[in-house]
Amino acid sequence: MIDMTPIGIIHSPFTKAEGMPIQPAGAHGVKGTVEVLEEFRIGLKDLDGFSHIILLYLFHRSEGFSLEVVPFLDNQSRGVFATRAPKRPNPIGLSVVRLDRIEDRVLHVQDVDILDGTPLLDIKPYVPEFDSRDEVRTGWLEQAKGRVAMHKSDERFK
Amino acid sequence: MIDMTPIGIIHSPFTKAEGMPIQPAGAHGVKGTVEVLEEFRIGLKDLDGFSHIILLYLFHRSEGFSLEVVPFLDNQSRGVFATRAPKRPNPIGLSVVRLDRIEDRVLHVQDVDILDGTPLLDIKPYVPEFDSRDEVRTGWLEQAKGRVAMHKSDERFK
Repeated sequence: MIDMTPIGIIHSPFTKAEGMPIQPAGAHGVKGTVEVLEEFRIGLKDLDGFSHIILLYLFHRSEGFSLEVVPFLDNQSRGVFATRAPKRPNPIGLSVVRLDRIEDRVLHVQDVDILDGTPLLDIKPYVPEFDSRDEVRTGWLEQAKGRVAMHKSDERFK
Repeated sequence: MIDMTPIGIIHSPFTKAEGMPIQPAGAHGVKGTVEVLEEFRIGLKDLDGFSHIILLYLFHRSEGFSLEVVPFLDNQSRGVFATRAPKRPNPIGLSVVRLDRIEDRVLHVQDVDILDGTPLLDIKPYVPEFDSRDEVRTGWLEQAKGRVAMHKSDERFK
């Protein structure tokens, strides 16, 4: 067993899982804040030079886990590690967000697809050389692409 | 406090931190395996359709944490959240690796910059639409770029 402890809290307009964006395209431009606890504030030094950051957080509304889930945009059961679903053995969420500015120990971010009140576990700088890959295959998500595109259009015109 | 429990173990050629690649360019083509515990095997279904996966793991050799660290490739102290250093309040590591194939509950992967014996916490599919960003600023790492490039050359010709 490994003990983790929240280092802050994420605030967003999403107060319940229903109505949350189901993919980053749906969260484009959505603003939120990341409030880091005072005791960890010093660790934010130099972070303001980065345009994007990786947030690791706890899926705190998720109870237990399922090894197979039916993801959004799909109608078949998939292995949970082939999805981004929250009901995972270790319920850690990962989002890449845009960092607008830092005020003291509050990060102002955009493209937030995270529930309000989510406990923050870690912040990492987003570095394309480390985190970005080309020529990628995305398995079952390729088949869902038509539906993803439709969903994007819905968002775009609403 | 949040309890996490390893779901598997990562094997690589790197048995000690000294001599580890300091960035993914240095780990290019390095092969490793990810052994998932039998009880979580079902969760791997459909993962073989993805060419790249995100591994979240425990920096198990890291004791305690520092809010300021002097990163590799730099000579100045930086806030830990502006680095990928292991001594973090929640010592979670993140690597994007190439997935070659899955045999039963063993994932054969490449581009591994992870210590042998590292406890695995989570596997997520790498999805460019979720995880890749363009027009990125990378703060203090920009200044270190000359040194990064030199290091890459060293690797390339060795």
